[in-house]
Amino acid sequence: MNRLNIAVIGTGRMGSVHVRNLVRKIPEANLVALCDIRLEAAQALADELGVPRVVRDYHELLADPDIPAVLIATSTDTHWFIIRDAALAGKQIFCEKPLALDLPSIDIALAAVAQAGVKLQVGFNRRFDPSFRRVRDIVASGAIGRPCILHIIARDPEPPSVEYAKASGGMFLDMTIHDFDMARFQVGEVEEVYALGSVLVAPQLAEAGDVDTTLVTLKFANGALGVLDNSRQAVYGYDQRLEVFCSAGTAHAENEAVNTVVVGDQTGMHAALPPRFFMQRYPETYVNEVREFIDCVLNDKAPSVTGRDGRLSVVLGYAALKSYRENRPVRVDEIWRET
Amino acid sequence: MNRLNIAVIGTGRMGSVHVRNLVRKIPEANLVALCDIRLEAAQALADELGVPRVVRDYHELLADPDIPAVLIATSTDTHWFIIRDAALAGKQIFCEKPLALDLPSIDIALAAVAQAGVKLQVGFNRRFDPSFRRVRDIVASGAIGRPCILHIIARDPEPPSVEYAKASGGMFLDMTIHDFDMARFQVGEVEEVYALGSVLVAPQLAEAGDVDTTLVTLKFANGALGVLDNSRQAVYGYDQRLEVFCSAGTAHAENEAVNTVVVGDQTGMHAALPPRFFMQRYPETYVNEVREFIDCVLNDKAPSVTGRDGRLSVVLGYAALKSYRENRPVRVDEIWRET
Amino acid sequence: MNRLNIAVIGTGRMGSVHVRNLVRKIPEANLVALCDIRLEAAQALADELGVPRVVRDYHELLADPDIPAVLIATSTDTHWFIIRDAALAGKQIFCEKPLALDLPSIDIALAAVAQAGVKLQVGFNRRFDPSFRRVRDIVASGAIGRPCILHIIARDPEPPSVEYAKASGGMFLDMTIHDFDMARFQVGEVEEVYALGSVLVAPQLAEAGDVDTTLVTLKFANGALGVLDNSRQAVYGYDQRLEVFCSAGTAHAENEAVNTVVVGDQTGMHAALPPRFFMQRYPETYVNEVREFIDCVLNDKAPSVTGRDGRLSVVLGYAALKSYRENRPVRVDEIWRET
Amino acid sequence: MNRLNIAVIGTGRMGSVHVRNLVRKIPEANLVALCDIRLEAAQALADELGVPRVVRDYHELLADPDIPAVLIATSTDTHWFIIRDAALAGKQIFCEKPLALDLPSIDIALAAVAQAGVKLQVGFNRRFDPSFRRVRDIVASGAIGRPCILHIIARDPEPPSVEYAKASGGMFLDMTIHDFDMARFQVGEVEEVYALGSVLVAPQLAEAGDVDTTLVTLKFANGALGVLDNSRQAVYGYDQRLEVFCSAGTAHAENEAVNTVVVGDQTGMHAALPPRFFMQRYPETYVNEVREFIDCVLNDKAPSVTGRDGRLSVVLGYAALKSYRENRPVRVDEIWRET
Repeated sequence: MNRLNIAVIGTGRMGSVHVRNLVRKIPEANLVALCDIRLEAAQALADELGVPRVVRDYHELLADPDIPAVLIATSTDTHWFIIRDAALAGKQIFCEKPLALDLPSIDIALAAVAQAGVKLQVGFNRRFDPSFRRVRDIVASGAIGRPCILHIIARDPEPPSVEYAKASGGMFLDMTIHDFDMARFQVGEVEEVYALGSVLVAPQLAEAGDVDTTLVTLKFANGALGVLDNSRQAVYGYDQRLEVFCSAGTAHAENEAVNTVVVGDQTGMHAALPPRFFMQRYPETYVNEVREFIDCVLNDKAPSVTGRDGRLSVVLGYAALKSYRENRPVRVDEIWRET
Repeated sequence: MNRLNIAVIGTGRMGSVHVRNLVRKIPEANLVALCDIRLEAAQALADELGVPRVVRDYHELLADPDIPAVLIATSTDTHWFIIRDAALAGKQIFCEKPLALDLPSIDIALAAVAQAGVKLQVGFNRRFDPSFRRVRDIVASGAIGRPCILHIIARDPEPPSVEYAKASGGMFLDMTIHDFDMARFQVGEVEEVYALGSVLVAPQLAEAGDVDTTLVTLKFANGALGVLDNSRQAVYGYDQRLEVFCSAGTAHAENEAVNTVVVGDQTGMHAALPPRFFMQRYPETYVNEVREFIDCVLNDKAPSVTGRDGRLSVVLGYAALKSYRENRPVRVDEIWRET
Repeated sequence: MNRLNIAVIGTGRMGSVHVRNLVRKIPEANLVALCDIRLEAAQALADELGVPRVVRDYHELLADPDIPAVLIATSTDTHWFIIRDAALAGKQIFCEKPLALDLPSIDIALAAVAQAGVKLQVGFNRRFDPSFRRVRDIVASGAIGRPCILHIIARDPEPPSVEYAKASGGMFLDMTIHDFDMARFQVGEVEEVYALGSVLVAPQLAEAGDVDTTLVTLKFANGALGVLDNSRQAVYGYDQRLEVFCSAGTAHAENEAVNTVVVGDQTGMHAALPPRFFMQRYPETYVNEVREFIDCVLNDKAPSVTGRDGRLSVVLGYAALKSYRENRPVRVDEIWRET
Repeated sequence: MNRLNIAVIGTGRMGSVHVRNLVRKIPEANLVALCDIRLEAAQALADELGVPRVVRDYHELLADPDIPAVLIATSTDTHWFIIRDAALAGKQIFCEKPLALDLPSIDIALAAVAQAGVKLQVGFNRRFDPSFRRVRDIVASGAIGRPCILHIIARDPEPPSVEYAKASGGMFLDMTIHDFDMARFQVGEVEEVYALGSVLVAPQLAEAGDVDTTLVTLKFANGALGVLDNSRQAVYGYDQRLEVFCSAGTAHAENEAVNTVVVGDQTGMHAALPPRFFMQRYPETYVNEVREFIDCVLNDKAPSVTGRDGRLSVVLGYAALKSYRENRPVRVDEIWRET
């Protein structure tokens, strides 16, 4: 079998997930090196999994001609320049989302990728969830007519720390950003957003200038309407649902449940909760997205999740933030006009 | 509109249900008289609903040439001779189930009906439930192949009194009898039964020689297999489900629920209970069955639920009782051979 | 039993529903007269149901001291002056929704009611649906914390005629008006609305200046957020759902289904559709709301659905219309400031 | 970390599943060797996964003092003597089900295990399914009273070949055997069985003397009743459900589905099918059972699934076969009396 030599840069929470998947679940990959500024942690992971090489400085890997591809899972603020450097070195690139929290940095990264002619896939893993993909496929097939109304519900089980919130860019850029991408995946391009926010469950987030409960409406270019519902606190678990209501039918992706048991007693019929958080809900998506990337590199195909997708999710996040602050609908081209 | 003059004999629990339905929900009927040995109760009901005539003795109604049809809802032990007398008087007859708890009485009644050439419909109301009927229609259409395995679950919310149990003929003749009819409705004729019983929730029933928990297996003439599950105590409500598993698919009728609310909290997702008992679960079936009867009389059609159906449910009840007592499979023709 | 003499003014589609319910399902009511400008239709209904009196001019009924209460189900444009006249005559009043399509007319009617000191209940029947009421009760109990996000989905099975649409005041005043009332019932007062609309399924409605697909967001006074989803065309049936997501849990009312059957075959598991339209979905609510009204009159209680509720739903409809036309959030007090 | 050296004997369908799990998902295990009479296949698997040693003759592994534990996944007819030899060699043993298809062979194996004082765990993997285990835990807790009626539905998607059927011991020993174990896991010891069988979907199995559709009823020692429903052909997928109905409630494990999508159109609401077969339905159970085994060896605990459990499932299979052939209930002690 033709296997792709790949290195992982950044072996923290998400990076170590990718490392384990590459070793255990993606036979098409040959994981040849890890890189992390915390060298000991990376070394321990490499020892456990038999990865032969560990470096502290990613430039070493970029200089190695036997490593045609890198997976970047470092902290968000470093994505843009590692992408730029990797592109300059001619590497094929998979990068975790978001590309950056500011558009100029994203532009630098995407320009480098374009100039080098390398592939860049962004880690919008939820696109690889079988249920969300099945909805998209049904809608895209036209079998139930044209899209009319999109609902996405995405609620976390509990609020993050104030420190996390402060560094996150705020709820629209930290949480809703995933749903902007999902909205575009399901229905298409967005022209205008209107964002509502409230502090109802985590008053400490107000001190950080953030909210904990949001609704964002969308006007799509094709005339469809959409609404994104986010909360920092769904006590019953990680609530991840969507519906695309169409002119000749509707398609829902309901929540999963941790088991299929229903208990009936004198008080009601009791079913299990959804999975607790994203690593329980979406484990296979992280495998599927990297398999697609490797297939794209090995067989010279274009990735389905592009740098432009990564950029647009951030654009929409800024549009929502502006809309929330000014309490008015904001057209996407107020933030960015595609040339 | 052509309306059918009809009288109701017996205005107790089930009789008064039929009386109200005839007045309020069945415009094809003209309810002309009530009969009950408890004359005052019948008179009060007639006054409330504007029924013009009340009698104590049903022979008065049978003698009236302006009453072509009667609905019999007296106590079970009187069904057989009222049917016989009504048939002799040339009346069209709807009779509540069961026809009788002994086969000789049923034979007398059915012989009179046959000789008089009148119609007799037996009140197996569950055949008129939209969900059970939909399952039957799908199975009968052949769209999902031939029937292979039938499951019927029918559990009451709480045990009856010992007095009731003693008079009822026991659980196989009191509860399972409905499911024998449903089994024949869904899949066809039964050749052999095997019955298990246990006392697990209502020890007082053991003193009455009865059980509270039963499983009855069925061999159908067409090779299909079936199982009937009955309990006297489902604390979560009246549990009424069935499945007909077929060679090219399956069809279930699930429980209804008293509302459609689902509440999620940290302990689970909580849904509503099934309706509490048969009057909450099956109200429309009592209307539907009588409408069919009236249509059959007015338009000279054959009722779909016949005296033979009424007889066979009792035959199967006795077969189950014999099987339980002797702990062996019992062929239906040990009880009765159709000639 | 103490029964309330009542007359029904207007015996068209909704009026005849109320007439039948009063006769058949509300024993506390004594329906003494019908009124309709189409006298023959009213007479036929009276004959069928045994209502003793039929008039063409409602003033006759208002002049009758033996009729303490009236139910108004005439065309919307006549509600305001019949309410006014009935109040002047000292009648207790149940009136179908909406009170009027313009606020000055509503003000005249409500002023007359206030001056006369009579009761006025408005026919927001969905408040009497057992599932929606159960959600409200759970939320109001505080058992699942404070409300954070409300979703209401209300989609009709097929678009109305252009004539109907033109006379209806448009989708926000014709359809969303019910959901404004439900939103206030579930979560409380609304401060601001933002409305999106699109023509996606019924282009003929665009000629009437109307839309067929809408999303309306709500800011509630208590900080909660809400979204109302309406469509003129849900081909799978009358889609009526809501969720109140709260700080310590969530409560959904799911769609009902016409039966409980699930059929499995090689292509999937297939369940039944929702009821086709509002008369199949909400029949009991029309009984329940009138029973409450009669109880309020007989026992001198205040109705739970008031003239103010009727007014506010129209106010919110106008706020949505203004928001849609100007593409900006509109505060409710731009339309009406409660004094 | 303390890791257990283990070897796998038999690397066919189930063996290779265990091999991959041991390497990728069970860090407590150190897979040191594979054994298979088809040496090349085993070698290829070892090469792929980096297992250092491959042998053709299992005696080599039994002779190695550095291998304290073996996992046996050879063909069923060889289980008994490999268990015997492994026990004589002092190895801890995990063996795939069934132990054997004849009781004398099982007795030889179990006697050797007892004499050697080694651990033996049998691979009844379904006990490790989270949903079935959750039902068992709720029932065992007493929270919903005592068990009254057990239903197990286990239907394969399509019939096996005639060759497979002939070698399998027949449907009761090949399919129902899993459900006998599950029944004992959920409710306890069985005293009597009655088995019905029919040929309805795969006439070729009749030629092999086998059936394709069965119902088996159970009388448990605690008075509960049970029924096991098996079919060789559920065209909609691998149907795996159970319910334990108890005196104060009920607990169901429903089918899983391949995704959570519901599509509504004019014909109905359409949901996804169950997983297609056991490797899609139960993948985690094969990991969980082996992790328990390794934990038992490392920490000297008794496995929860014992040789006695393995033996009893075969005893119940023979009782069902005898019951089916003689068409009468068969007591378990007709087959085997525990001494």
